Amino acid sequence: MEKQLSSKTIFEGNIIKVTHDEVELPDGSTAMRECVYHRGGVCILAVENGCILLIKQFRYPNRMDTLEIPAGKLEEGEDPNQACYREFEEETDRRAENMRFILKLYPTPGFCSEIDYLYEAENFKYVKDSLPQDDDEFLKLVKMPIDEAYAKVLDGTIFDAKTIIAIQYAYQKYHKD
Amino acid sequence: MEKQLSSKTIFEGNIIKVTHDEVELPDGSTAMRECVYHRGGVCILAVENGCILLIKQFRYPNRMDTLEIPAGKLEEGEDPNQACYREFEEETDRRAENMRFILKLYPTPGFCSEIDYLYEAENFKYVKDSLPQDDDEFLKLVKMPIDEAYAKVLDGTIFDAKTIIAIQYAYQKYHKD
Repeated sequence: MEKQLSSKTIFEGNIIKVTHDEVELPDGSTAMRECVYHRGGVCILAVENGCILLIKQFRYPNRMDTLEIPAGKLEEGEDPNQACYREFEEETDRRAENMRFILKLYPTPGFCSEIDYLYEAENFKYVKDSLPQDDDEFLKLVKMPIDEAYAKVLDGTIFDAKTIIAIQYAYQKYHKD
Repeated sequence: MEKQLSSKTIFEGNIIKVTHDEVELPDGSTAMRECVYHRGGVCILAVENGCILLIKQFRYPNRMDTLEIPAGKLEEGEDPNQACYREFEEETDRRAENMRFILKLYPTPGFCSEIDYLYEAENFKYVKDSLPQDDDEFLKLVKMPIDEAYAKVLDGTIFDAKTIIAIQYAYQKYHKD
């Protein structure tokens, strides 16, 4: 347990809020905590004819393309069970009849509050009148066989944490020896 | 691809650096990017008599205890292949003869540069003269059977992303139906 002694807000953006706090540790000493608050998100495992749906996109912090499962940030106060339908449709042009909750993950709990909720899309299909993508996203849909995706996790081609988790889950569920 | 037009450093702490950048998008329009830079870390899967070694610790951003595999941040410019030995010994009082690299993971590549390197500790054993823990960490070692850890991923008790990945990997490798 750490008790907050003071908190200074450093930055309030659209995606993150950053604070620099002083805390009291269990032994009575003090330490500083650099803290990023984030509203969290949803991410979706979708398997279509034995292939996982992935999104290729540019990610700025490391100046590189990534392959990630469809995902999106929660709006303020939004229910993940609702958001997952929207984000899935925006990024894949597919509409799901059902989303089955799999698990929640904290990407980096040491300094960041983000929580992501992982679902599996069930009974989904392509729709012509799908929701448009966000203005500042340039996305390309990639369909990859589960075994190939699993191999790409181990060879370093796929490295996004939520995507690794979803692929390991799919491999465990669908792979037949 | 996004081209940096300007960058403003908001905060430089011990753990993270935060910038607020303007970028040019592929269609020529512009957008703002909130960006967290982090030196990255190492994390270690260690299986001892069928149990995974986990660390119970308090994590400030969500004010809660977590169960995580042993892990630690890289020093500036440090080789992950070296750091993993130190962090493992500091957190578990065990010394490994070998560390086998498994994979790398980007916890949350949309806004943060962090990369974590996952290893499996091989031929490790308890040592009396182990490296001391960091001053501001209060850690408790927990040994958990692999099947139980896997169940706790699915029931939400274990939610740290790197730990989920390590447990899924261990379950795939060691679980016998």
